[in-house]
Amino acid sequence: MGSQDVKLLSSWPSPFSERVEWALKLKGVEYEYVEEDIFNKSSLLLELNPVHKKIPVLVHGHKTIAESFIIIEYIDETWKQYPLLPHDPYERALARFWANFTEQKLLETVFVAMCITGDEQEKALNEAREAMEKIEEVIEGKRFFGGENIGYLDIAVGWISYWIHIWEEVGSIHIIDPLKFPATTAWMTNFLSHPVIKDTLPPRDKMIDYFHGRKKDLSETFRGRFKV
Amino acid sequence: MGSQDVKLLSSWPSPFSERVEWALKLKGVEYEYVEEDIFNKSSLLLELNPVHKKIPVLVHGHKTIAESFIIIEYIDETWKQYPLLPHDPYERALARFWANFTEQKLLETVFVAMCITGDEQEKALNEAREAMEKIEEVIEGKRFFGGENIGYLDIAVGWISYWIHIWEEVGSIHIIDPLKFPATTAWMTNFLSHPVIKDTLPPRDKMIDYFHGRKKDLSETFRGRFKV
Repeated sequence: MGSQDVKLLSSWPSPFSERVEWALKLKGVEYEYVEEDIFNKSSLLLELNPVHKKIPVLVHGHKTIAESFIIIEYIDETWKQYPLLPHDPYERALARFWANFTEQKLLETVFVAMCITGDEQEKALNEAREAMEKIEEVIEGKRFFGGENIGYLDIAVGWISYWIHIWEEVGSIHIIDPLKFPATTAWMTNFLSHPVIKDTLPPRDKMIDYFHGRKKDLSETFRGRFKV
Repeated sequence: MGSQDVKLLSSWPSPFSERVEWALKLKGVEYEYVEEDIFNKSSLLLELNPVHKKIPVLVHGHKTIAESFIIIEYIDETWKQYPLLPHDPYERALARFWANFTEQKLLETVFVAMCITGDEQEKALNEAREAMEKIEEVIEGKRFFGGENIGYLDIAVGWISYWIHIWEEVGSIHIIDPLKFPATTAWMTNFLSHPVIKDTLPPRDKMIDYFHGRKKDLSETFRGRFKV
């Protein structure tokens, strides 16, 4: 499969794009990386994802797929090498369940907590720490969420290993206490040590600058999201 | 598969439970129906779905699965008769994409619009009508979203055929104009004519009463959801 057949519209600081890259790289699928400026969206992006107008978008031949979890399932069903989802239907359901849970209860919550202040921020942080407790239970006793190898759920929640520390620093917030979440902390080390993962992470300083900008832009938008 | 093996924790007015029932019935899987009172949750529900504490929950032997879309994928992967998702990976991605889109942009929006008033309600209604325009394009020229037969996407968006009219009446709002959405209107007729669907719909009068109660309970909760 030559790189001309697969194209990924992406944005370098996006955890949603990054997980699609991880899936493609773990499978060894060659692709063309197309950087999008999310503040000045290209006509190509608007044409390929007219509904949400968001990255990531995967283009495979004449087929266009949006939404990162849906793209990853497509990748897993199209290129069979290095299966990401488990084979067993119940294990698959659990992987999807925890991926959705982490997206709704942790990713959105921590991102908003980074941008807001005061009592609302405290409420968001409490919800994020509660979500972390559940995730800690899921990873306990395992090397990866996928078992001995990185799987769908590792990719889905992989942003925790890197993005969350950036967001903690930018928002002056604290969620990941290694003493409270030792299993998750150990998983982070395992995950970040994998060659595919460590070679794709965006530079830390550039991330800090970028998310300081996002925080400034979004603080008003997110006010009232966590009513006290 | 005897009914003792499969149990569905459900709530009669819930569109989320209903879609799981449709999936089981279309597949011909026998199951025990367990009615839950969502205002006084049973210890069984809290034990089986401690994370979200919500119906529907499917119990299959010793396995417990929550979240309606995840349950339906589990059902489709476990009982192979009458496949719900298409076989082709790209068609599967599209079905999942439009299911998620309709959940986020139409179901939540119309439900909130029913409960709120004024400019915020108008904003929600405009968003709902925009979402309906996209759905109209998807169903145009087809008998069902799944083609000649009811499939995953029909089940996922099936609530449109019945719940939306109840919510329109309770909220004194208007979204489904048959002249603007003729293909969706025709699909509703096709969908509601199917024996599995028409035999599982809750009584209209009981639904109207129930959702009047939900509107009263939730109007304050939803205020500010659609900032003007």
